[in-house]
Amino acid sequence: MRHPGCWKMLTVAMCMALLGCLQAQELRGHVSVILLGATGDLARKYLWQGLFQLYLDEAGKDYSFSFHGAALTSTKQGQAFVAKVLESLSCPEDVAPDRCAELKGQFQRLSAYRHLATSEDYVALSKDIEAQVQHGGLREAGRIFYFSVPPFAYADIARNINSSCRPGPGAWLRVVLEKPFGHDHLSAQQLATELGGFFREEEMYRVDHYLGKQAVAQILPFRDQNRKALDGLWSRHHVERVEIIMKETVDAEGRTSFYEEYGVIRDVLQNHLTEVLTLVAMELPHNISSSESVLQHKLRAFRALRGLQKGSAVLGQYQAYSEQVRREQQRPDSFRSLTPTFAGVLVHMDNLRWEGVPFILMSGKALDERVGYVRILFRNQAYCVLSDERWVADQSQCLPRQIVFYIGHGELGSPAVLVSRNLFRPSLPSESWKELGARPGLRLFGRPLSDFYAYRPVREQDAYSVLISRIFHGRKDSFVTTEHLLASWGFWTPLLDSLAHEVPRLYPGGAENGHLLDFEFGGAQLCFSQQQPEQLVPGPGPAPMPSGFQVLKAKYRESPLISAWPEELIAKLADDIEATAVRAVRRFGTFHLALSGGSSPVPLFQQLATRHYGFPWAHTHLWLVDERCVPLWDPESNFQHLQTHLLQHIRVPYYNIHPMPVHLHQRLCAEEDQGAQTYASEISALVANSSFDLVLLGMGADGHTASLFPQSPSGLDGEQLVVLTESPSRPFQRMSLSLPLINRARKVAVLVMGRVKREITMLVSRVGHEPKKWPISGVLPSSGQLVWYMDYEAFLG
Amino acid sequence: MRHPGCWKMLTVAMCMALLGCLQAQELRGHVSVILLGATGDLARKYLWQGLFQLYLDEAGKDYSFSFHGAALTSTKQGQAFVAKVLESLSCPEDVAPDRCAELKGQFQRLSAYRHLATSEDYVALSKDIEAQVQHGGLREAGRIFYFSVPPFAYADIARNINSSCRPGPGAWLRVVLEKPFGHDHLSAQQLATELGGFFREEEMYRVDHYLGKQAVAQILPFRDQNRKALDGLWSRHHVERVEIIMKETVDAEGRTSFYEEYGVIRDVLQNHLTEVLTLVAMELPHNISSSESVLQHKLRAFRALRGLQKGSAVLGQYQAYSEQVRREQQRPDSFRSLTPTFAGVLVHMDNLRWEGVPFILMSGKALDERVGYVRILFRNQAYCVLSDERWVADQSQCLPRQIVFYIGHGELGSPAVLVSRNLFRPSLPSESWKELGARPGLRLFGRPLSDFYAYRPVREQDAYSVLISRIFHGRKDSFVTTEHLLASWGFWTPLLDSLAHEVPRLYPGGAENGHLLDFEFGGAQLCFSQQQPEQLVPGPGPAPMPSGFQVLKAKYRESPLISAWPEELIAKLADDIEATAVRAVRRFGTFHLALSGGSSPVPLFQQLATRHYGFPWAHTHLWLVDERCVPLWDPESNFQHLQTHLLQHIRVPYYNIHPMPVHLHQRLCAEEDQGAQTYASEISALVANSSFDLVLLGMGADGHTASLFPQSPSGLDGEQLVVLTESPSRPFQRMSLSLPLINRARKVAVLVMGRVKREITMLVSRVGHEPKKWPISGVLPSSGQLVWYMDYEAFLG
Repeated sequence: MRHPGCWKMLTVAMCMALLGCLQAQELRGHVSVILLGATGDLARKYLWQGLFQLYLDEAGKDYSFSFHGAALTSTKQGQAFVAKVLESLSCPEDVAPDRCAELKGQFQRLSAYRHLATSEDYVALSKDIEAQVQHGGLREAGRIFYFSVPPFAYADIARNINSSCRPGPGAWLRVVLEKPFGHDHLSAQQLATELGGFFREEEMYRVDHYLGKQAVAQILPFRDQNRKALDGLWSRHHVERVEIIMKETVDAEGRTSFYEEYGVIRDVLQNHLTEVLTLVAMELPHNISSSESVLQHKLRAFRALRGLQKGSAVLGQYQAYSEQVRREQQRPDSFRSLTPTFAGVLVHMDNLRWEGVPFILMSGKALDERVGYVRILFRNQAYCVLSDERWVADQSQCLPRQIVFYIGHGELGSPAVLVSRNLFRPSLPSESWKELGARPGLRLFGRPLSDFYAYRPVREQDAYSVLISRIFHGRKDSFVTTEHLLASWGFWTPLLDSLAHEVPRLYPGGAENGHLLDFEFGGAQLCFSQQQPEQLVPGPGPAPMPSGFQVLKAKYRESPLISAWPEELIAKLADDIEATAVRAVRRFGTFHLALSGGSSPVPLFQQLATRHYGFPWAHTHLWLVDERCVPLWDPESNFQHLQTHLLQHIRVPYYNIHPMPVHLHQRLCAEEDQGAQTYASEISALVANSSFDLVLLGMGADGHTASLFPQSPSGLDGEQLVVLTESPSRPFQRMSLSLPLINRARKVAVLVMGRVKREITMLVSRVGHEPKKWPISGVLPSSGQLVWYMDYEAFLG
Repeated sequence: MRHPGCWKMLTVAMCMALLGCLQAQELRGHVSVILLGATGDLARKYLWQGLFQLYLDEAGKDYSFSFHGAALTSTKQGQAFVAKVLESLSCPEDVAPDRCAELKGQFQRLSAYRHLATSEDYVALSKDIEAQVQHGGLREAGRIFYFSVPPFAYADIARNINSSCRPGPGAWLRVVLEKPFGHDHLSAQQLATELGGFFREEEMYRVDHYLGKQAVAQILPFRDQNRKALDGLWSRHHVERVEIIMKETVDAEGRTSFYEEYGVIRDVLQNHLTEVLTLVAMELPHNISSSESVLQHKLRAFRALRGLQKGSAVLGQYQAYSEQVRREQQRPDSFRSLTPTFAGVLVHMDNLRWEGVPFILMSGKALDERVGYVRILFRNQAYCVLSDERWVADQSQCLPRQIVFYIGHGELGSPAVLVSRNLFRPSLPSESWKELGARPGLRLFGRPLSDFYAYRPVREQDAYSVLISRIFHGRKDSFVTTEHLLASWGFWTPLLDSLAHEVPRLYPGGAENGHLLDFEFGGAQLCFSQQQPEQLVPGPGPAPMPSGFQVLKAKYRESPLISAWPEELIAKLADDIEATAVRAVRRFGTFHLALSGGSSPVPLFQQLATRHYGFPWAHTHLWLVDERCVPLWDPESNFQHLQTHLLQHIRVPYYNIHPMPVHLHQRLCAEEDQGAQTYASEISALVANSSFDLVLLGMGADGHTASLFPQSPSGLDGEQLVVLTESPSRPFQRMSLSLPLINRARKVAVLVMGRVKREITMLVSRVGHEPKKWPISGVLPSSGQLVWYMDYEAFLG
C-alpha cells in the first residue's frame, strides 16, 4: 500500500526509515548458509537435518535460502555424500509424506556441495553468492558460516572468510563455532584473540548444544512465566540444593584420543553444566527476550561464583579406561591415565540470593544409567501433624518439593518439566508443551510421577535444529560470547590446574559402582562417602598420617611448648584460646584478643569460626597485633584476612572490632595522623592495665614477630605501646604493637608452622635475649604466660 | 577392718573423714518417706508402686526405710485405701512370685497410713520417726516429703514441715513438688518465693515426669557415650531440624475444669517439651554425672532461646471442646472457649551451635495417633550417583539420617532410641538397653525399621519409679530448679500473653484432621499450610486488607508523593532504593546511602535484608543521618538498630560502614573531640562533592527531621556539614547531618508512617520554607530529587 501524500506529511528521518521498509518489501532477502565440514559426522547426524528444519520453518516467509555444503573432500565424493544425506532427511510427523517429498525436493535444489580449500575458492564462493542474489532479483540479507571442523582449521577458514567472503554492506555475517573452545583459560583466550582478528564479537556464535536442548532452553521462559510463584521460592531461604547432572552409560572407547586430552570436566562441566548453572542461578532480567540483557545477567552470575579449590571436586575413572587408551594410542603397558571420566563438583554462589546453597555438578561415563537433569530441591519448612502414611501428594508440604528440568533419556525417555504438586501449578506455553500422560509405577526422584505436574514438548526437537533457528534469528543469548567463555574458563582453570596430578578413584562401571562414587560435602569440601576399598593405581597418595596421634608437650626457650601435626596443633590452640576466653569473660566480663596477620593463623581462624560454638564472641574484643600500611580493603591487609576467614562467620559486635588505624585522612601511616598513638590510647582506654588477655604471635624466618623486624629499631623497648616500623619486604611500612606492650599480656601464644621455619626454630632455641637481632627473643611476658605452638615440621623438620 | 596404727599414721583431718565413715558403718542410715496425698489418684497409679520399686532397689544395701502414707482422709478410710493399694503392687518380671510376695509383705510392714492435718500431727510424725530411729539403733539419713496434693495446699504443709518436721542435724530433707508450678512467670515466682520461705533450694525437687521417661532420661547419656560420633554432627552445620512432639488421641473430656485454665502450652510445652529441648540443645558438660554442671549448662541453653512472638505459634482446638466445657462447667450456650488444645511452636536458639536450626515443638489432643518423640533430622549433604531405587540403607548417605528418642506409644509401642544406619552405630549401656527385634512392615518416619539401629529398654520402667530413685540419690538435675522454672516461664509467658485473645483453628479430631493442622515456617513466623476452610467461631479476625492494592502517586509540598498501605509502601521504597543503588554503582562504582534512626526504618531494613538479593552491598557505603550521644552498643543507639536489623544479615565490608563518632576518647559528643568535624571530613573525603546518592529521612510529630529540632538553632544553615544538636527528649545530645549537607544529596526520601504523624503531615503540607519552626520544611535538595513516602494513615489519617 502506498501513501501518495507521504513525502509531505512525514519528516525526512521517518521517511528514510519507511523507505528502508519499502525497499525490503520490494527486494526479498536472501540468506546463504555455508556448512564447513559438510561431510563430517556432526553434519551428517544433525546439521543437514537442522538446516532442512530451518528451511521448513522460514522459507515462504520473508527470506530465500541457499545451502552450501563445503569441505576439503573432492567435489565428486562430496556431492555423493551430500546427495545421500539429503535423501535421508526426515520431515516432522505432522507433514504428509507427499508434501515432505516435495519440500525435500525444494531443499535439495537449494543445496549443493562445493570444494572449499584455497582463498580463491572463497573468492569464487562469494562471487557465486552475489551472482545468485543479483540474478534472483534479491537483496542479500546475510551469510551463515557453520564451522563443523576441527579447531586447528579455524584460523585459515576465518582468514579466508574475513578477507574474501564477507557479504556486502547492509548484510550480516554470522560464523558458528563448535567446541572445544580451548583447553584452559590461556588457550581459550588465544583462540578468542585470533578469531577476534577476523570477526566482530556480534558475528560469532559459539555453540553449546546443551543450550538447544528443549528442557534447558525452557529454563528462562519457565522462570519468566512463573515469576509470581517463583519469586518467593527462588533463593537460599527456600532452595535446599540444586543438582545439575549428566550421567552416561557409554564409555570413551573409540574416542580416547580426544578424551585423554580433555576429561570430563572440560568435556561436560566447563560448558554444558555451567551453562545450565547460570540459567538457574542468574538474576532474572525484566525482559528475557532481550539477548543483551540475558547475556549481561549471565555474566553477573559468573562473577558471583565462588572460586573452586582442589577440595571442591571428586574425580573418578572407570576401570577399563587406561587399557582403552593403551590400546587405542599404542601406549606401553605401564601407562596409567590420570584423566577423570567422572567428576562431582560443589559450586557456591557468593551472593545474597544463593549464599550457602550447594550447586552440585556431576557427570560421568560408564555409570548405571543415562540421564540428564537439573533438579531444584526446596527445603522442607513445614511440620505435618498427620502421621506420614496418611500424607496426600498435593496437600502435604512435608513431601519433597522439587522442580526438575529433565533434559532427556532416563526413566522418562524424553525431555520434561516437572513441578511437585505441593509446590504450584506451573504455566507453560501450551503450543509447545503438553501434560504428560499417566505412567503408573514410574517413580522419579523418589516419588511417583503422579506427584508432579509433568509436561513434555509437543514436538521433540533436536538441539541443533533449535540452535540453527536461533542463529538465524540472531538470538545471541543462546550462544557463548567471548566474555562468557573466558569467564567460564577463568572459573574452571584453577580447579583443573590443582587437579592435574590427582589420582582419580577407579570404578568398575555400571550398576556395579554401587555407592563407590557417592560424595558428601561439609562446607566447601567434597569427599567420597565411602573409603577407597583398594587403591588400584599406585599414585602420589596423600601423605601418611600418624594414626595414634599425640600432642607433644615439652619446653622451648624455657616456656611450655606444644607440638603436633598441623591439624591437631590448630585444634589444640583453638581449644586453648576458647578456654582462655571463657575464663576471661567469666572473670572480667570481656576478653581482649590480639591477633597476628600472615597466612599461618588462617586455619586457626577457620577452626574458631566453624567449630567453637561456645566461644563468647559477643564479649570478645578483637585487636590487631600488626598491620600493613595499606587500606583495610586491600587484599594484603591483615584485617582483610581476619574479615574473610573469621569475622564473616561469627557475630562480634561492630564496636568490638579494632582494626589498626593505618589509613587516616586518606593517607597511609602518615606520622602526623598519629595512628599509632590513637590505637595506643584506644587500648589504654578499653584494655585494663593495657594487658591483653591473649596475644597471638607468629615467628618469621628472620626471627621477626608482630611487625618488629631485626632491621628496624622501633618498638623493641621504650614507652610506646604502638609503633610504626619498616619491613624488609613490601609493603615496607607497618604498624605494630610494641614488645613492651606484648609483654604486658596475660598470655602470649606463638604459632610456628611449616618446614620453612625449621632453621629459625633451631637458631632461636639457642639464643638468649637479643631482641635487636631476633625480635622474637624479646617476647617474655613480665607476669603473663608464654606458650609455643609448633607443628612437627617446624619443630622437628 | 580396723587399722590399729591409724591414729599415728594419719593427719587429724584425714582421720576425721575416716571416723565419719566408720560411724556410718556402725549405725545404719534410715530414710523416711512421707507421701502427702497418699490416697489420691497419682499415688494410687504410680507413686506407691514407685516407692515399692525404691524399696526393691535400695533396701538391703545401706539404708532402712519407712513409708508414711499421709492424707486428710480419716485414719480408718486411709488405712483401708493404703492396704488395698499395697495389695495391688507388682514386682518386676524377673522376680519369682514367692519372692515377690515376701518382698511385698516386708514393704507392707514398713508402710502405714497416717492422718496428717494439724501442726500437732506433724510434731507427732517427727517424734514417731525419731523414736523409730532410736529404737532401731539407726542413724537418721533423711526425710522425703512427696507433695501429691493440689498447689493451694502447699503453703500449709510446707510451713508445718519447716517448723515441726525437719530431721535433725546431719540428715537431709527433700520435698518433692508436682506441677503445676504456677500459671505464668509472676505466679510461678510468687509460689517459688513462698516455698523459698520454708525450704532451701537444694531441698526442693520439682517433678517433671517427662524427665523420668526412659528415652528422655537417655538423651544426655546417649550424647555423652557417643560424643565422638556426635561431635561433628550436633550443630547447625549438620542438623536440619529438631522435632519435639507429643501427640494424644484422647481429648480433655472430664478434665475441662483444669484444662480450661491451662491449655496445651502450659500443660505440655512449657514443661515437658521444653525440658526435652534443653537436653537436646544444651552444650554437653564434660562430666554429665555432675548435677551442678548439668543444671548450669541447661540454664545457659535457656539464655540462648530467642524470644517468642505471636507469630511463633499456631493454635488449634478440637471442635467438641467448647461443648464439653459448657457441659462440665455449666456455661451458657453462647460460651466459646479460646483455650488451645493444639499448638505448634517454632523455637530458635541464638547461639553459634544452633543458629538457624528450627526446633519444632508440637502437642495436641484429639489427634490421629498417640505418640511422643524427639527427632533430630540431619541435613542431606551428599549426592548419590547411583539411581535412587538402588540405594542401600546402611551405605547411602542420601537416605534420611535421623536420631530419634522415641518416648513411647505410637507404632512402636515402647520407648526406644533409633539411629539411622547410614549415620553411625551408637553405643548404649547394654545392661539397660537392648537391640529391638525385627518388625517386618513397620515403618517409622518414612523408613522401614530395618533402616535404623534400634534399641529398647531391657526393663520398661515407669517415669515415677525412675524419678523416685533419683530423688533418693539426690540427682537434682532430673528436676526443675527454681532458676530453671523461672527461666522457662520467662520464655513462655510473653507468648502466652500475646496469644491470650487468639482464636484457635477448630479441628474435627482424629484422622479427619487431614492436613488441616500442618504448619509451615518462613523465618520465625509460623502459619497453617492450608487456608482455614471456614471460621466456625466468630472472633476478632485480622483487620481487613484492601484487596486491589494500588500505590497512590501524587504531590506533597510540590514534590512527588508515594502513598500506600505500610507493607506496600516499604516494598516500594526498598525497590526504589535498590534501583538508585544499582544506577549509582553502575555510574560511579559506589553508592553512598545515609540512613536515619528511629523505628520507622526498621521494616525497611528488614525488607532490604531479606528480599533484595541484587542489592550491590559490596559497593555500598552506609552513613548515619543522625545519632544519639550514647555508646554505639547502647540499645538506644541508631547504629545498634542498623546493626540488628540490617548489617547482621547482609555483607557490607567493615570499612564501608560509617557510624557517627559520638563516642571518642571514652566520652560522648564532647566538643573538643571534634567528632562532628571528623565525620564531616570523612564524608568530604569519600563522598564525591559531599553529595550522598540517597539520604533517607523521617519526620517527627514536631516537624523535626534528622536530629534537627525546632528548638535547636544549629545545623539549619551555614557551612557545617555535621553538627551537634539538642533534642527535647532523652538522650538530649545528638549528632546530625546539617540541612545544607542533606540538601546536597542527589536524592532525598522522607518516610512518614502511622496515624500519629497525621497532624504534622497536614500542617507541613501548608507551611512554606520555615526550617526554624519546622526543620522538615527546609529539606529541599538544591539539584537533587525529593520524594515523600507516606502510608495511608499518615497521609489520609
